[in-house]
Amino acid sequence: MFELLKTDPQTKARLGRLTTAHGVVETPVFMPVGTQASVKALDPRELREMGTQIVLGNTYHLNLRPGLDIIRAAGGLHKFMNWEKPILTDSGGFQVFSLAKIRKIKPHGVEFRSHIDGSLLFLGPKEAMEIQRVLGSDIAMVFDECPPHDAPAREQRLAVERTIRWARECREQPRADGQKVFGIVQGGSNPELREECARALVAMEFDGYAIGGVSVGEAEPEMMKAIEFTEPFLPANKARYAMGLGTPAQMIELISRGVDMFDCVLPTRIARTGTAVTHTGAFALKGSAYKTDFGPIEEGCECYACRTFTRAYLRHLLRANEILGLRMVSVHNSHLFLKIMAEVRAAIAAGTFAEFYREFIANYTPSQKILAQRQRETER
Amino acid sequence: MFELLKTDPQTKARLGRLTTAHGVVETPVFMPVGTQASVKALDPRELREMGTQIVLGNTYHLNLRPGLDIIRAAGGLHKFMNWEKPILTDSGGFQVFSLAKIRKIKPHGVEFRSHIDGSLLFLGPKEAMEIQRVLGSDIAMVFDECPPHDAPAREQRLAVERTIRWARECREQPRADGQKVFGIVQGGSNPELREECARALVAMEFDGYAIGGVSVGEAEPEMMKAIEFTEPFLPANKARYAMGLGTPAQMIELISRGVDMFDCVLPTRIARTGTAVTHTGAFALKGSAYKTDFGPIEEGCECYACRTFTRAYLRHLLRANEILGLRMVSVHNSHLFLKIMAEVRAAIAAGTFAEFYREFIANYTPSQKILAQRQRETER
Repeated sequence: MFELLKTDPQTKARLGRLTTAHGVVETPVFMPVGTQASVKALDPRELREMGTQIVLGNTYHLNLRPGLDIIRAAGGLHKFMNWEKPILTDSGGFQVFSLAKIRKIKPHGVEFRSHIDGSLLFLGPKEAMEIQRVLGSDIAMVFDECPPHDAPAREQRLAVERTIRWARECREQPRADGQKVFGIVQGGSNPELREECARALVAMEFDGYAIGGVSVGEAEPEMMKAIEFTEPFLPANKARYAMGLGTPAQMIELISRGVDMFDCVLPTRIARTGTAVTHTGAFALKGSAYKTDFGPIEEGCECYACRTFTRAYLRHLLRANEILGLRMVSVHNSHLFLKIMAEVRAAIAAGTFAEFYREFIANYTPSQKILAQRQRETER
Repeated sequence: MFELLKTDPQTKARLGRLTTAHGVVETPVFMPVGTQASVKALDPRELREMGTQIVLGNTYHLNLRPGLDIIRAAGGLHKFMNWEKPILTDSGGFQVFSLAKIRKIKPHGVEFRSHIDGSLLFLGPKEAMEIQRVLGSDIAMVFDECPPHDAPAREQRLAVERTIRWARECREQPRADGQKVFGIVQGGSNPELREECARALVAMEFDGYAIGGVSVGEAEPEMMKAIEFTEPFLPANKARYAMGLGTPAQMIELISRGVDMFDCVLPTRIARTGTAVTHTGAFALKGSAYKTDFGPIEEGCECYACRTFTRAYLRHLLRANEILGLRMVSVHNSHLFLKIMAEVRAAIAAGTFAEFYREFIANYTPSQKILAQRQRETER
């Protein structure tokens, strides 16, 4: 399923190729997030035009709304949302632990109340895999337990034990035709737990491995360490996916640490409040500095928004609450994330990734405001 | 500027061609409304694809936000919003009388407070024409007084007198290169006032004539009468424009009464609350009847939304408050209004409009809810 094409000689960056039932995904890859069967504010044509290879869907959200019967009747998630390329579905584990009310952990899953209508529901390995089977995603994720980053050591250990047990249960469930399943490594910022969890999952021979329990409110250095504690125990011939990350600079950092796959609501979420991202950082497009700035969001950018509209016009739209404003910033931001991944792949292929990395990080000014956001909580 | 190509033998329907500085407009025509320099939720590509010939902009709104300096610096409204086809701008008269707070009518215009920030402003014939000159619209509208439909007779008379006087003042103001100016007939539901106003404006030889003071809350039969009272006094060789109208059935009715041009926020406004329009009427797409309806919004429709998505998917998006839902219903509804106009033009050209009219009205079920809406108040 995963072909490792090249490893960067100076860093751990990898060039790879994931083959799925709905097509090939070149890695490193950024996956736009379509939690509720729609990448917010974007349509499939726009996604294709910006070079989207694979999108995310979400078990927890889609099971609550529209509900599985409707997606089953549609013939699966691809047909329902009219997206013919690969889809990865998250298992709902993260959402059960972050969104749902009054949850009760049981041996074979979690009892919780829907955040929409309060109804009592149950999600565990069996249920999560069955939902993902019906959704028909190309890559399904195991049902894991994702404790808060500041959970006590005992809770982190219990979460790892459950995550391993539930992963084994997931492994045995029926799958959709050609569906691949990724394990999720938990263990917080504890190196022993990370190693233990990774080793146990790798022994089960999943099709790929995600690093979970990152971007859950912890500081950036701690997040980097969680990745560094985990990565050495993951096999080279399987894809590695850092869940819910990150800013452009974070993705570049993680690629240099051996990560292949990313998903994040950041580009569309901050677009809706008028924040645009470029190769050098983020800025609030509503600022008065852009009143009569008739250049594009980012000079040289080939996205539809930059080819069509000026900063001054987009600023006006955002201030006037015109939907076209947030639409176009969503187009630009998502395009940028995908474009950076294309540049990364070209650099690894050319053997110049280390140079690309240094330049990128040197030119990029991280936004403290954005880093402080807990990006995954409500939407992933 | 206006060429009358054909008149229907059985009705007053007309086939025409308006030539403007930014291109030719085939009439009867529906003009999507871009009050704040954006047709709500749609982008210029989508507008072009659905066959938009001309869009509306608004003097009152654009003058408040982004403000004239910014649009002047951009090189006019076409460049600011990146719309290369014709634009008609309303004069702001209607908005001053419907949106602005604490207005005071003076001899040469109206003093009012901005509905955005409460600042004291003045708009009259001179100001409205100067703003429209800077916007650089292809068709500018005179600054008129639009009283409420239930205003007393004395007020209606005063409004007509002012409207005539202000039209004369507008006539004398400088214009943008190639800019045409339309007069606006007021007079409410009083046939004498309508005739008097029409005759006075026609004597001034405007480039076209609008019928204002319609769709301002009056009942539909009263609105039809206002058009019937006015139309006989308008010259055959100039375009006639019914402002702020209407539903598909209303437009067909008005075309049969000799009207050539329409604008209405209806298709995009009701789209945002999930109401779709078809050749046979309107329906709420959120309804549970469409849960597993995998057909398009309208069978046979060629719009992007109908070619791409099912009712079941769009229903889900609307219920989940996904922007793509209201975007796609906006695409469909706007396309439908334009498509009906194309069908009308073909029918007049083929000499079959009377038949088309009978069939259309027989098949169309008007929505009382929509008819009751005062469509123009906040957005036109």
